Amino acid sequence: MPAPPPGPLRAFKLVLEYDGTNYAGWQLQPGASTVQGVLEERLGRLLAEPVRVHGAGRTDAGVHALGQVAHIHTHTGFEAERLRHSLNGMLPRDVSVREVEEVGLDFHARFSARGKTYTYRILNRRTRSALLARQSWHVARPLELQTLRRAMDLMIGEHDFAAFCAANADTTTTVRTLWEARLDVEGDLLALTFRGNGFLKQMVRSVVGTLVKIGVGDAEGELMSRLLAPGPRSLVGPTAPPQGLVLVEVVY
Amino acid sequence: MPAPPPGPLRAFKLVLEYDGTNYAGWQLQPGASTVQGVLEERLGRLLAEPVRVHGAGRTDAGVHALGQVAHIHTHTGFEAERLRHSLNGMLPRDVSVREVEEVGLDFHARFSARGKTYTYRILNRRTRSALLARQSWHVARPLELQTLRRAMDLMIGEHDFAAFCAANADTTTTVRTLWEARLDVEGDLLALTFRGNGFLKQMVRSVVGTLVKIGVGDAEGELMSRLLAPGPRSLVGPTAPPQGLVLVEVVY
Repeated sequence: MPAPPPGPLRAFKLVLEYDGTNYAGWQLQPGASTVQGVLEERLGRLLAEPVRVHGAGRTDAGVHALGQVAHIHTHTGFEAERLRHSLNGMLPRDVSVREVEEVGLDFHARFSARGKTYTYRILNRRTRSALLARQSWHVARPLELQTLRRAMDLMIGEHDFAAFCAANADTTTTVRTLWEARLDVEGDLLALTFRGNGFLKQMVRSVVGTLVKIGVGDAEGELMSRLLAPGPRSLVGPTAPPQGLVLVEVVY
Repeated sequence: MPAPPPGPLRAFKLVLEYDGTNYAGWQLQPGASTVQGVLEERLGRLLAEPVRVHGAGRTDAGVHALGQVAHIHTHTGFEAERLRHSLNGMLPRDVSVREVEEVGLDFHARFSARGKTYTYRILNRRTRSALLARQSWHVARPLELQTLRRAMDLMIGEHDFAAFCAANADTTTTVRTLWEARLDVEGDLLALTFRGNGFLKQMVRSVVGTLVKIGVGDAEGELMSRLLAPGPRSLVGPTAPPQGLVLVEVVY
């Protein structure tokens, strides 16, 4: 089927899934393979016009997404469903488009977002796993689940997360609200889910590093209250590795 | 810690997990990266003697394992736990050793095995998934689960699986007994599990291809009875792709 003729400017919202292992993150970078770069290149070919892809937020190198959201503006005559299908046919196996929806020109993936959900997976057992290596952090020391849950409960609500913010972050305020901080356990696989109105740069990985420090007993559970006071960055645990993290959903 | 001095011949049983994506299968092949090859190379270095790794069975290129079993004979002075730990430190991220156990010299990973468990994963939804692409087969057409279950029930017991055997297989009999053929459903992800006393070459993938042919309605459910009669290979569905298959367990 030939491409339909171009018309007036339209906007589409894209819901994207990707395995971040082989990407230098979401954001366009010269000389590096990024998810935004791959999308812009393929969309440019498909729609035969230069396309800028605006994401709801950046994800770091190695971080995955089940529900990253982006918008594009285009003069294409494609309908949403055909756009989704054609784009999926062109994208590499580790990037897929879950949904495409035509939206108003005032929709902005980043500025219209009200919140996000992230899940961080930890494999908590003595031996590492080959099949889970790309999508979890292997923590060999036993984690005390009740302690973890109590520390996570303390995070719910509005707090100044300055201690958990990467030093080079560009932000006006470090206050964020978490609506949920939940621990789900399936055998030796833990899923730590965080839902909130916004997340600072590397905040989830920094929080998870600190929770693990508490969970293995290298710090008291009250460390979390102290850090949310806000406390000194020096007491925060090491940043958890990227491969355990998934951007699950962007809420509008 | 230096390696302990060598002594008399000993045997070890290894339980192995691997992501088969980047391997040309289990079995040693000149000029190709195989799981057996990687294990023999790393064990040879670790134990400072040539080591032959005998697997319970071959897995094809792209097929995974959660519980492949192998045995080795060695003069090493290593204890099982130290062998496991050291080997895990040397292996690539996509191969791991779950357990190492010292066994009698009469243990043979292949000849001592009484049966195996395989699971095949199908993602049954319209849109493909980037995060599940390495470990599932994406089937876009809707599968009728009740029909699938009925066809799987027919497979339980002793049958001549000749129709499901790869043409170039080297085997004396094509009769095998399935103890279990189970369908587990979690949202749009299906897990087809088969437990039995033995499996012919590409039997599971051939069975799954046929089940999908039945499940989408391209063949009647009774095709399964006909093929187990045994029936003609020409009616078998296309062999399911390797990445959905996992060797879950070897039973001794």
